[in-house]
Amino acid sequence: MSKIKVTIWNEYRHEKRSEHIAAKIYPEGIHGAIASYLKKFDNFEVRTATLDEPFHGLPDEVLDNTDVLIWWGHIAHGEVSDEIVEKIYKKVLCGMGLIALHSAHLSKIFTKLMGTSCTLKWREIGEKERLWVVEPGHPIAEGIDEYIELEHEEMYGERFDIPQPDSLVFIGWFQGGEVFRSGCCFHRGYGKIFYFQPGHETYPIYYNEKILKVIKNAIEWAKPVKRIDTIQCYHIREPLEEVKISE
Amino acid sequence: MSKIKVTIWNEYRHEKRSEHIAAKIYPEGIHGAIASYLKKFDNFEVRTATLDEPFHGLPDEVLDNTDVLIWWGHIAHGEVSDEIVEKIYKKVLCGMGLIALHSAHLSKIFTKLMGTSCTLKWREIGEKERLWVVEPGHPIAEGIDEYIELEHEEMYGERFDIPQPDSLVFIGWFQGGEVFRSGCCFHRGYGKIFYFQPGHETYPIYYNEKILKVIKNAIEWAKPVKRIDTIQCYHIREPLEEVKISE
Amino acid sequence: MSKIKVTIWNEYRHEKRSEHIAAKIYPEGIHGAIASYLKKFDNFEVRTATLDEPFHGLPDEVLDNTDVLIWWGHIAHGEVSDEIVEKIYKKVLCGMGLIALHSAHLSKIFTKLMGTSCTLKWREIGEKERLWVVEPGHPIAEGIDEYIELEHEEMYGERFDIPQPDSLVFIGWFQGGEVFRSGCCFHRGYGKIFYFQPGHETYPIYYNEKILKVIKNAIEWAKPVKRIDTIQCYHIREPLEEVKISE
Amino acid sequence: MSKIKVTIWNEYRHEKRSEHIAAKIYPEGIHGAIASYLKKFDNFEVRTATLDEPFHGLPDEVLDNTDVLIWWGHIAHGEVSDEIVEKIYKKVLCGMGLIALHSAHLSKIFTKLMGTSCTLKWREIGEKERLWVVEPGHPIAEGIDEYIELEHEEMYGERFDIPQPDSLVFIGWFQGGEVFRSGCCFHRGYGKIFYFQPGHETYPIYYNEKILKVIKNAIEWAKPVKRIDTIQCYHIREPLEEVKISE
Repeated sequence: MSKIKVTIWNEYRHEKRSEHIAAKIYPEGIHGAIASYLKKFDNFEVRTATLDEPFHGLPDEVLDNTDVLIWWGHIAHGEVSDEIVEKIYKKVLCGMGLIALHSAHLSKIFTKLMGTSCTLKWREIGEKERLWVVEPGHPIAEGIDEYIELEHEEMYGERFDIPQPDSLVFIGWFQGGEVFRSGCCFHRGYGKIFYFQPGHETYPIYYNEKILKVIKNAIEWAKPVKRIDTIQCYHIREPLEEVKISE
Repeated sequence: MSKIKVTIWNEYRHEKRSEHIAAKIYPEGIHGAIASYLKKFDNFEVRTATLDEPFHGLPDEVLDNTDVLIWWGHIAHGEVSDEIVEKIYKKVLCGMGLIALHSAHLSKIFTKLMGTSCTLKWREIGEKERLWVVEPGHPIAEGIDEYIELEHEEMYGERFDIPQPDSLVFIGWFQGGEVFRSGCCFHRGYGKIFYFQPGHETYPIYYNEKILKVIKNAIEWAKPVKRIDTIQCYHIREPLEEVKISE
Repeated sequence: MSKIKVTIWNEYRHEKRSEHIAAKIYPEGIHGAIASYLKKFDNFEVRTATLDEPFHGLPDEVLDNTDVLIWWGHIAHGEVSDEIVEKIYKKVLCGMGLIALHSAHLSKIFTKLMGTSCTLKWREIGEKERLWVVEPGHPIAEGIDEYIELEHEEMYGERFDIPQPDSLVFIGWFQGGEVFRSGCCFHRGYGKIFYFQPGHETYPIYYNEKILKVIKNAIEWAKPVKRIDTIQCYHIREPLEEVKISE
Repeated sequence: MSKIKVTIWNEYRHEKRSEHIAAKIYPEGIHGAIASYLKKFDNFEVRTATLDEPFHGLPDEVLDNTDVLIWWGHIAHGEVSDEIVEKIYKKVLCGMGLIALHSAHLSKIFTKLMGTSCTLKWREIGEKERLWVVEPGHPIAEGIDEYIELEHEEMYGERFDIPQPDSLVFIGWFQGGEVFRSGCCFHRGYGKIFYFQPGHETYPIYYNEKILKVIKNAIEWAKPVKRIDTIQCYHIREPLEEVKISE
């Protein structure tokens, strides 16, 4: 079986700006933390890319060789080039998988694919979140018990302005009184998208084994079934069947 | 009960350019044909708007007074101003209903709300379409028997690149061998959207009583439940519940 | 416009057995509390029925004259006659609306229509529930703000073994740490079903104006679009179109 | 990777009663035709079972060792023991996959899991069917082009009385003028169900390589993510979080 080519994209600004984050939480960046987990498995070919690299680390040869793109962004969504967003968008519609993490809910690529504002409520006091599995037969829930508990997480609350997910896998409970559709699957074009809420930069969420397991499952779920070159309208002059036009 | 304010928007180019269409099919334009049907009912307040009017006939005071916007466009999608599309987009997310007819599948507003390419197959030989009701308990199917038969229609065929509809009400059968998800409901933001495939400009589809009944039903279904002024992220500093943060 | 004929069915055992409930909470029964609210509106024709009446209060002439059936049951699901359940089941598939309240999740009629176990977690300590609106454009959410707060309710927690709802309108947050899909819409046959979680018999939930508003909205949403006499397979000998069979 | 244990259940009556079917189409039975295809692949462990065997070939040790059950039945649905149906039902809710083929739409197990009548229209003149892929990113569509064409098939037409599928993968076009939701995915409990329409006993459908490929894909999609022993309500006395009950 051929390997799944995963590219982990990270804005990589918080880690460079905050000494606390750099020293204590993500010395290798969020992308580095996720990459080092995924590299333990034989079935992934892992690379990373960040905002400040040329072409945000996503030149054509990288996108052409990416089966599933993971996206983490927060404070610099506006700095991502529209041209590159357009390329990613077409790749997804043509089959590439996309996993949008946490504050990527407001990224250009995610909102463009959703067609909605993707707005929500938020509060940053480090309260507890408990992610409940509501679709235990979904492959993204594989290996997860009834719930995942995160001692500290930023609150994201409803109403989350997304289209109804094709499958809702996790619902988050927050200590302060809110709920959130924290794990959502979408088919778009030939591609598949998973939004996963956990992952605020000030907490070590991407070292949590269960969170990492969900990301791994999501990659396997989102890998392309079929890739096409372009998605477009077709003029089919000849009918497949004999047609008699009445007067 | 207050009236539903309906604005019927039409590109209105085919009717002006083609003598055949102008003389034989839509002398008042497609918008005129739909408007004259809707005006028979007490519960609608109907106006029309077209591409070549100032602001495409959709200045703020019109959009502010529109509960449901009907959209027909085909050869001039690119001429619709991005600024006005952005306004309509926000209105839908804030509660306004949208009914996208036929070739509006490629309109800026519909593709933006879907987040996908909305591409499809097509063939224009005037073959027969039969629209089967697959969700007879849906209010948009009210008053329609098992199917609607159109003696002549442009073929639109799968794969239609849309997100899975929240409800699929009609599936179209075409004589030449294709099928199409011809009647599709979507919730987006606080708004509701209905895509309805019939309505090629060279056939008198919008005089068909059943097609008009579906459009009427769709307006009643899509009327706003709640309208808000703006859709945005909220920072909720204070939790609703007492929170104890563990160390 | 003709009135919507609503029949409120209640097991009506707790109210008769518990002096506390009878004297302090539901002296007229849960059905009585809901009925007295609905009777304030012109567009409903309201009747009630209870388990211990002949035919559980649902002889054919009642079912034949019911547009929407509301169901509350808890400790005596097993006493409901299979024959009557079968009649209700057919009525729903033929167009009648059904609103299943609270512990009706385990009623014969609801589980039969869902096709799943409808099991869940529960805890009865009278904790707080907050029901968040996640689909604000849905007519069942009309008139409800961001959430409904219930100071005391029985906890119902995920995983709730139901099919994915066609629309998920409310998600419940519970103080003790659970979440629940508390307001769920389903199309089944020609009928529509709404499951609504609040309503434990020891709390005065069915006097809460917002809860009652949701029930009213749900009735209006679930009223039949079309009623048929029977749902069955049809042998269609003659094709609608000319068919040539190849060798 | 451990093998997927597949049990192919067939009513196996048509093949024994009709000389034409036995001699010309399915000399080894429908189950035999599907089994001989699946046995070519390393990742399946295949067995078959038929109605007239003891326990219909499905004693507990077989069900306990089945990951995905394929079901074909037609003229003898009523002869399948309710006790065995109940066992299969619980197995599905506890994680076992189920693939219901063709006339299994009226089988006890499928209708019980759907909660609806699963009725439809039908016509048996051997007309052409074309199955269009509408969700090309779904793993069940892997390796299938735009459509599968069957020169001769029994017509199954809408309205098919099923709940809205979680994913609609194929829509069938029939020469005589009907359409059908021919490939439908459902999550129920911890299990997954795929309904696939092709397979009338008088045509050699289960030798068609594309049809077989879809069945293979469906098995891989429906294999259990997690299996549980029993699905039941749980009384959770202790809240996960500290709860203060207000007066």
